[in-house]
Amino acid sequence: MPSQTKPLYQICLIGSGGVGTIASVVLTKSNLANVTVVLRSKFAYVSQHGWEVDSVDHGQLPRWKPHRIVSSALDAAKDGEGQPVIYDYVVVCTKQLPERNPVVDMLSPVVTAGTTTIVMIQNGIGIERDVIKKWPTNAVMSSVSHIGSAITEPNIVTQVGRDVSKMGPHCHAGLDDSESTRRAKAFVGMYCAGGASVCELVDDIQKARWEKLLWNGTFNTVCALSRINVGELQRSGGRETMLVPMMWEIWRTAKATGHELPESVVDWMAYRLPNDCDYKPSMLVDLEEGRPMELEVILGNPLKIAREVGVEAPNLDMVYRLLQVQQWQIDQGKLSNGA
Amino acid sequence: MPSQTKPLYQICLIGSGGVGTIASVVLTKSNLANVTVVLRSKFAYVSQHGWEVDSVDHGQLPRWKPHRIVSSALDAAKDGEGQPVIYDYVVVCTKQLPERNPVVDMLSPVVTAGTTTIVMIQNGIGIERDVIKKWPTNAVMSSVSHIGSAITEPNIVTQVGRDVSKMGPHCHAGLDDSESTRRAKAFVGMYCAGGASVCELVDDIQKARWEKLLWNGTFNTVCALSRINVGELQRSGGRETMLVPMMWEIWRTAKATGHELPESVVDWMAYRLPNDCDYKPSMLVDLEEGRPMELEVILGNPLKIAREVGVEAPNLDMVYRLLQVQQWQIDQGKLSNGA
Repeated sequence: MPSQTKPLYQICLIGSGGVGTIASVVLTKSNLANVTVVLRSKFAYVSQHGWEVDSVDHGQLPRWKPHRIVSSALDAAKDGEGQPVIYDYVVVCTKQLPERNPVVDMLSPVVTAGTTTIVMIQNGIGIERDVIKKWPTNAVMSSVSHIGSAITEPNIVTQVGRDVSKMGPHCHAGLDDSESTRRAKAFVGMYCAGGASVCELVDDIQKARWEKLLWNGTFNTVCALSRINVGELQRSGGRETMLVPMMWEIWRTAKATGHELPESVVDWMAYRLPNDCDYKPSMLVDLEEGRPMELEVILGNPLKIAREVGVEAPNLDMVYRLLQVQQWQIDQGKLSNGA
Repeated sequence: MPSQTKPLYQICLIGSGGVGTIASVVLTKSNLANVTVVLRSKFAYVSQHGWEVDSVDHGQLPRWKPHRIVSSALDAAKDGEGQPVIYDYVVVCTKQLPERNPVVDMLSPVVTAGTTTIVMIQNGIGIERDVIKKWPTNAVMSSVSHIGSAITEPNIVTQVGRDVSKMGPHCHAGLDDSESTRRAKAFVGMYCAGGASVCELVDDIQKARWEKLLWNGTFNTVCALSRINVGELQRSGGRETMLVPMMWEIWRTAKATGHELPESVVDWMAYRLPNDCDYKPSMLVDLEEGRPMELEVILGNPLKIAREVGVEAPNLDMVYRLLQVQQWQIDQGKLSNGA
């Protein structure tokens, strides 16, 4: 029998949707960490029954639990004896809704200034800015994740798409780049050890984030606004009239910020899915179910950055303003349970 | 008793929705014309029972009929004895759908080259272009109409908003301007004699059309795309973020074509309706009922003209392309009977 490795890292993970729950499985399975998961609405049920995991990467895991489940970040900040816990890594996997639920507020109880590395497994651009501002000497890193995973109430986790991600440090002036990189590398090592399908450490995580935005800023936003799936949008002609011009606006903004993507990535991103693809991107699902969309980090921040670097992005800007009206309708309760 | 005036003008009217039916009442009541109305789907019922008119301008008109009802323009081209009819005016009040049902095709049987004046009581910009091209020596005029009038199946016409319009000639090289103007003036005289609430002859009908486009190109289009009524769009903040910038794009395009509107008209158009206004513009109603929208004449033609005169209109252009996707969905039968 292999001996149990003594946990090296204290980890707190916040956000247990499809992405976050599989991340908690991976980190727990690494045997390199002691994993505390913060569950809010699901705390009562899952702390008793665990998760029923059915995963393409990890197989069947009945009644699965991480090392510890708590109901709030405040509870996570103390151990069973009420002693403060110093976390090495805090992993945040929530939806990115800075205007409603700022990440810095969520993380405050579990981040130790100067010590804890913050790991953001989240969508969008510019999401690290507020975190670095709040904890100017902490390491910050993020993950660009591709995974097909969803929760069915109350505790069923179904992962059908492999967990493939790129991770890298957001280097900044408050910490040596070598230290930011060392922490990111250790986390990636842990994530690979835990049986993720692919997890790659990259030098330029911003570039990877802009590349993913080529999808999220275009297909995701316009499918939501048009209330149609990917294949329908392609068949309608909207890919050529809108998505490709919008992708070039993103491409030029990324380039102006020092992250030049290969030109070929635009065509690849625009034409990689078949015309009968019935996938509904996340913002469309959110809109149909009357939930907040990740509009600010997917279009709001990129547009702010485009203005900072002097790139014109009129198509993205109009889609942004139109989706603000949709978000307003959602907030009024005018859209819910199916369009 | 006043003596019956011998009809001076032969008129054929095509398009009997709310607007067209009231126009046929007005022209018939003028006692200055012999009015033939082309009814397609409603021919069988209305030729037998007439219309049940309830009008703010004309009162109750039970079992009302114009002088003659026919079921096609081909039938209108001949009188009861099979002899050809030379029309002085052909009035077209249909929806403007140039890509599906071109006006020139509709009117061909009843227009005599060099003789018939074509009167377009229709939405949009550039609608006269194809007509002048087809009949280069005929007079062409149009009306910018504000009327609240609707048909309830099978034959009830309810006019709640007064018939207020501006009319004027589309002068062109194939005919003396004075002759174009004389014909328009005669028609306006007839329309006033028939008891329309207000009908004004204007020199610059294009300017009036651009002014109406400030509404139709903005509130009408964005309400449809956002699936909300006028008051909701105003309360959402979309008026300031989108409609006003779009209005200025229209204003600048109109100016570049020689039709300078007062600057104050933008604010007036943007702020004339209250925030609790629950009016649904026509394109939203069309979208909800799965019918074609007047997209080409409301945005397609103005955008072509903007390109011709070198005016940038990125906001209008994006709304146009997004609505093309909505029209595609309508054509696929994906939108019908309520959103």
